[in-house]
Amino acid sequence: MIAGIIGAAGYAGAELIRLLEAHPDISGLTLASVSRPGERISGIYPNLFRHGRTKFGEGILVTPEELIASSDIVFGALPAGAGEVYAKACLDRGISYIDLAADFRFDGDEETYKTWYGKNWQYPELRRSSVYGLPELNRERIKELKTAGPVIIGNPGCYPTAVSLACYPLLAKNARPPVELKPDAVIIADAISGVTGAGREPGRAYHFPECADSVSPYKVGVHRHTPEISRNLAQMAGRPVPLVFTPHLGPYNRGILATVYLPLRDSAEDRLPLIREHYVSFYRDEPFVRVLEDGLYAATNRVRLSNYGDISVHPDQTGTMLIIAAAIDNMVKGAAGQAVQNMNILCGFEETAGLLALPAVF
Amino acid sequence: MIAGIIGAAGYAGAELIRLLEAHPDISGLTLASVSRPGERISGIYPNLFRHGRTKFGEGILVTPEELIASSDIVFGALPAGAGEVYAKACLDRGISYIDLAADFRFDGDEETYKTWYGKNWQYPELRRSSVYGLPELNRERIKELKTAGPVIIGNPGCYPTAVSLACYPLLAKNARPPVELKPDAVIIADAISGVTGAGREPGRAYHFPECADSVSPYKVGVHRHTPEISRNLAQMAGRPVPLVFTPHLGPYNRGILATVYLPLRDSAEDRLPLIREHYVSFYRDEPFVRVLEDGLYAATNRVRLSNYGDISVHPDQTGTMLIIAAAIDNMVKGAAGQAVQNMNILCGFEETAGLLALPAVF
Amino acid sequence: MIAGIIGAAGYAGAELIRLLEAHPDISGLTLASVSRPGERISGIYPNLFRHGRTKFGEGILVTPEELIASSDIVFGALPAGAGEVYAKACLDRGISYIDLAADFRFDGDEETYKTWYGKNWQYPELRRSSVYGLPELNRERIKELKTAGPVIIGNPGCYPTAVSLACYPLLAKNARPPVELKPDAVIIADAISGVTGAGREPGRAYHFPECADSVSPYKVGVHRHTPEISRNLAQMAGRPVPLVFTPHLGPYNRGILATVYLPLRDSAEDRLPLIREHYVSFYRDEPFVRVLEDGLYAATNRVRLSNYGDISVHPDQTGTMLIIAAAIDNMVKGAAGQAVQNMNILCGFEETAGLLALPAVF
Amino acid sequence: MIAGIIGAAGYAGAELIRLLEAHPDISGLTLASVSRPGERISGIYPNLFRHGRTKFGEGILVTPEELIASSDIVFGALPAGAGEVYAKACLDRGISYIDLAADFRFDGDEETYKTWYGKNWQYPELRRSSVYGLPELNRERIKELKTAGPVIIGNPGCYPTAVSLACYPLLAKNARPPVELKPDAVIIADAISGVTGAGREPGRAYHFPECADSVSPYKVGVHRHTPEISRNLAQMAGRPVPLVFTPHLGPYNRGILATVYLPLRDSAEDRLPLIREHYVSFYRDEPFVRVLEDGLYAATNRVRLSNYGDISVHPDQTGTMLIIAAAIDNMVKGAAGQAVQNMNILCGFEETAGLLALPAVF
Repeated sequence: MIAGIIGAAGYAGAELIRLLEAHPDISGLTLASVSRPGERISGIYPNLFRHGRTKFGEGILVTPEELIASSDIVFGALPAGAGEVYAKACLDRGISYIDLAADFRFDGDEETYKTWYGKNWQYPELRRSSVYGLPELNRERIKELKTAGPVIIGNPGCYPTAVSLACYPLLAKNARPPVELKPDAVIIADAISGVTGAGREPGRAYHFPECADSVSPYKVGVHRHTPEISRNLAQMAGRPVPLVFTPHLGPYNRGILATVYLPLRDSAEDRLPLIREHYVSFYRDEPFVRVLEDGLYAATNRVRLSNYGDISVHPDQTGTMLIIAAAIDNMVKGAAGQAVQNMNILCGFEETAGLLALPAVF
Repeated sequence: MIAGIIGAAGYAGAELIRLLEAHPDISGLTLASVSRPGERISGIYPNLFRHGRTKFGEGILVTPEELIASSDIVFGALPAGAGEVYAKACLDRGISYIDLAADFRFDGDEETYKTWYGKNWQYPELRRSSVYGLPELNRERIKELKTAGPVIIGNPGCYPTAVSLACYPLLAKNARPPVELKPDAVIIADAISGVTGAGREPGRAYHFPECADSVSPYKVGVHRHTPEISRNLAQMAGRPVPLVFTPHLGPYNRGILATVYLPLRDSAEDRLPLIREHYVSFYRDEPFVRVLEDGLYAATNRVRLSNYGDISVHPDQTGTMLIIAAAIDNMVKGAAGQAVQNMNILCGFEETAGLLALPAVF
Repeated sequence: MIAGIIGAAGYAGAELIRLLEAHPDISGLTLASVSRPGERISGIYPNLFRHGRTKFGEGILVTPEELIASSDIVFGALPAGAGEVYAKACLDRGISYIDLAADFRFDGDEETYKTWYGKNWQYPELRRSSVYGLPELNRERIKELKTAGPVIIGNPGCYPTAVSLACYPLLAKNARPPVELKPDAVIIADAISGVTGAGREPGRAYHFPECADSVSPYKVGVHRHTPEISRNLAQMAGRPVPLVFTPHLGPYNRGILATVYLPLRDSAEDRLPLIREHYVSFYRDEPFVRVLEDGLYAATNRVRLSNYGDISVHPDQTGTMLIIAAAIDNMVKGAAGQAVQNMNILCGFEETAGLLALPAVF
Repeated sequence: MIAGIIGAAGYAGAELIRLLEAHPDISGLTLASVSRPGERISGIYPNLFRHGRTKFGEGILVTPEELIASSDIVFGALPAGAGEVYAKACLDRGISYIDLAADFRFDGDEETYKTWYGKNWQYPELRRSSVYGLPELNRERIKELKTAGPVIIGNPGCYPTAVSLACYPLLAKNARPPVELKPDAVIIADAISGVTGAGREPGRAYHFPECADSVSPYKVGVHRHTPEISRNLAQMAGRPVPLVFTPHLGPYNRGILATVYLPLRDSAEDRLPLIREHYVSFYRDEPFVRVLEDGLYAATNRVRLSNYGDISVHPDQTGTMLIIAAAIDNMVKGAAGQAVQNMNILCGFEETAGLLALPAVF
């Protein structure tokens, strides 16, 4: 099976190349760039230089159109708004499209997209074939949709993945968690990301001397991942859940750590073991979610270069606030790895195929 | 005037040396170490090697007793419980003692100290001469107490400094903030610290390869700075204020960034400019608190190596939660710099003396 | 085939686990620790927590003796001097042993080992079955030796790997390089390593605040890798080659960059393209050595997490000094990856098996 | 005395502001920017926001012309070629000009400048009033020249400062070093710099994810600091000294570590203590050069934020090569600090005025 990556010159594209090269069910890779067709990928990423027998051969970047014509499945790692046309072309050709941007993360809710992304959809009707690809939440929807033909996956954002995994067991309507959210609870998600989350384009804020050794919040109250998280929480809870989300930038490359505060109806002081047990049992069958044992804290270096989401469960001092920490590699479970996981589901591969590399200790 | 530093071999001690060396009103420095008397300070910190004409001369570490006998004011940078005996000796000799540990941060409340620090006070009566040294909160108390003789200052912890500065303008009883906290509000303080906060003693968690490139929470719900923050908030508000405090460790040396969530009684959507203006006006006369302009975010690299606390004011998306970010250098305003500020107040020096070095950009 | 790792709790051990877990010809892993048998590996490395279907099962550490009894090949990642007894036990049991320490890096030259490592060999006769495992230099020796029975591999040190790969094409007796070393040339190898090279044991020099943001030489003139490099250069050149080797510590986790200065007999100003071409052609069949194109510089982040050694060739300004930069991941090509490469050769697997993961861009 | 900084918006400009603000003999600061007059400096460097009572008042950037008209001494921190016109204007106005670029580093040797910087001088005659400002080498020349009127200082480059300080005691004609260079010795200077050395302009190579955790050489054989180093060595030795200089980029902000290899005529194995003693005695009266004791290695974090140059002296294994490590803060002794030192000499201030801040441990 041939996988194509449009936007191979960006960071998410590079990570897709790394993962798909190691994927047992992918026999070939085609790479495209909207702006740099004709270049060699190793000219852009010298780490790929002269790698013997790669699935991408010489790695000459083609145009998206050429790529679509020669791929069995296509990944789009493009800015918001740029992928719709390729998604359409894929469906027209009868192949599926996995979009790493935000264009297909809101089902049919164009209004929300427009509000936060400042543009309209070009082909709104594509949403009839699209599904939001957080497997832990929507695995069955994906499987159902694919029976009807080629599918568009809206691959989740990095922050929404971490925050959603942290909240799901407590919000899930039918999971009967041992504690309940306070009725008017506002969920606070405080998160920090490594600088790869900002992409490959240089800028003052990501210039090494300006961000090394520093931590700072950014886009407080206006980050585009806010409506995506809200949407996920609402789907989980079956009702809107008030949310405050604050992203921070940290002085390191990979990883998101989300610390989520969930106000409880009653003190859970004596039920913490139950809550952790609930989390363990809720995620028992999830191959990529690890609920940590008592005494451990989610840490970004424990999921480095892997598709895992690590979750640790903590009470506050009084027992009325549940604190959940979730760590993911923003470029793997938060982007390319989750996209491969979605491909696995779509294509009927083992869901973990190509994604079981152990996290690197350092 | 001769200043003495007991615990000169630790990180806070080293930072005190750096700051007091540059202080215009300090003519000499004596250095002591409980465990390493007789050694040269430049053997411990080679950055101090052969520095011509220092205030500490050859920098031979003496015993605390020798130091007290030859100093006009004494700083103690020691583990909890270790400083009381020196505080007493100072008072007995008629000189003031500035304690960078937690022993004098709770006024007469030995119960809280015992609960969180697991030990009793050796000389409880010393608290009659002690005051908690957050100048922005207690400047007048310090000035009042010193009229009665030598004083013990309980220098604040690093996290409590950042969080308290973030909350004070909104909690202060008489300040008439333009918005009100929700009546049953729980304040959430989510904070991250650089690794210098862990001190100089090597350990697995601070071994470079284990913490580089990683972020993780720690001591959730049980960090010893929790009661200190609560105590400050209660003093500000004139009533207990529920608090959740979560510390994180970040992969860098200096700086704390605290992001504090304050639930409001009503939406403040239209009053944000008023709130920022309130913060500006509240801190107008504070030499070391900077309320940032609209569009800027508090960042640890903007206060690096300075005694500033930077505060930025943000609304959440809905306007019902106020988000305050506060950045300090944990070793300066969070430790040694604030101790020098307290000395300045105690000794009648200009409060900013020795502390006006500009923050280093990088 | 079952591979065993003695010293699984150290960093090289952890890296062996990561690589062997992904190796197509290894079906099971046994893990041993001299000091911590009975513990779970995920208690030591939480990144390995609850990883579904690993080759190491629950990951309970056994004793070295138990491990040897149940493995088909054994890796020893132990301090110098600690592995001989296990090497002997392996040979006695008829299985091969790959030693990541220095005990088998000097063939029969016990004198040099004693001089630099300060101890005698316990079983000198083991060297009749041992070979130094730098595949680019000794591949044929390894293959020859293994025909006679189980083998001990002395896996090369990290610095020697980088420096040797940089020099080999110019020193190789039969390779007819287009330029010649100056007759009395002293080769200078100036190298820098990330902190993982210091291992997992915490210490002042590797305490985050002491090494972050800093570069420094260490052990100048006395680093134990010096005789190993000298030995390699002598084998290549067929004569002793004077060497000066200076290691540095850098503020990052992974990677060695060696910059090697080779004085030439005559100016090579006009022959640089020939020299690069010679390097390219010399390493043409080496699967893990990449000679970079003109305009590129060897960089540690281009070989991150891979078994590649990247080499870039540069003239100095005058043309009489050749400057070769070589980059490896010190934990992969410089340790665990090369050990796996040696296993592949020993066991008749594809030499690249399990080692073709693409270098991660970030 | 009023000091003016043209190019205040760059990194060297920012560092000049930091240092001059703390300088006891400077009462006011004027700031200029060629491209951004009218802006506030705190809009460019928010770390300077609302700093009470600064010497630069509101910090409104003026034009260079306005600055020259209102300053008593002027610093130029501009790209090569851009400062000559301001140097001329200063001389015309009768005030001195300290140039942090390369335009005045070559005395009257326009040929070398043209070769390496690719442009001609606009006002060659200015070199009659200019001097290269490495105080350890040219202090007397500076003092002599200033007796004749206003002076232009060519402030040294960062790498040349480190390498020159490392070599001077051994090369100085009249210093009678206890060992001699080999007659045809090629001096090799291998150096690494933090990313601030690249300036404030973002670019791919300095984008955080591209340079974090990585080391790489760059501009091998063609770095513009090469002729400047050569010129210094020649002045010291009284004859040309062959040089190979290789710069590297390291993943940290501040600091240069130069490791310099000096081939000796005879083995110095037994004379190392003499050599260190020679270095100590050679630099005895230099306020900013520290020759480290036996057992210590020059390290960039020991000179952080200070004007010190630290030097450690090491033999190679055979005694025929002397290895000198030199560490400076590239932005202080390597740029702004040295410029202030030159100002002190020019203006008859204490040479150490404003420059005795202790190096920060972390």
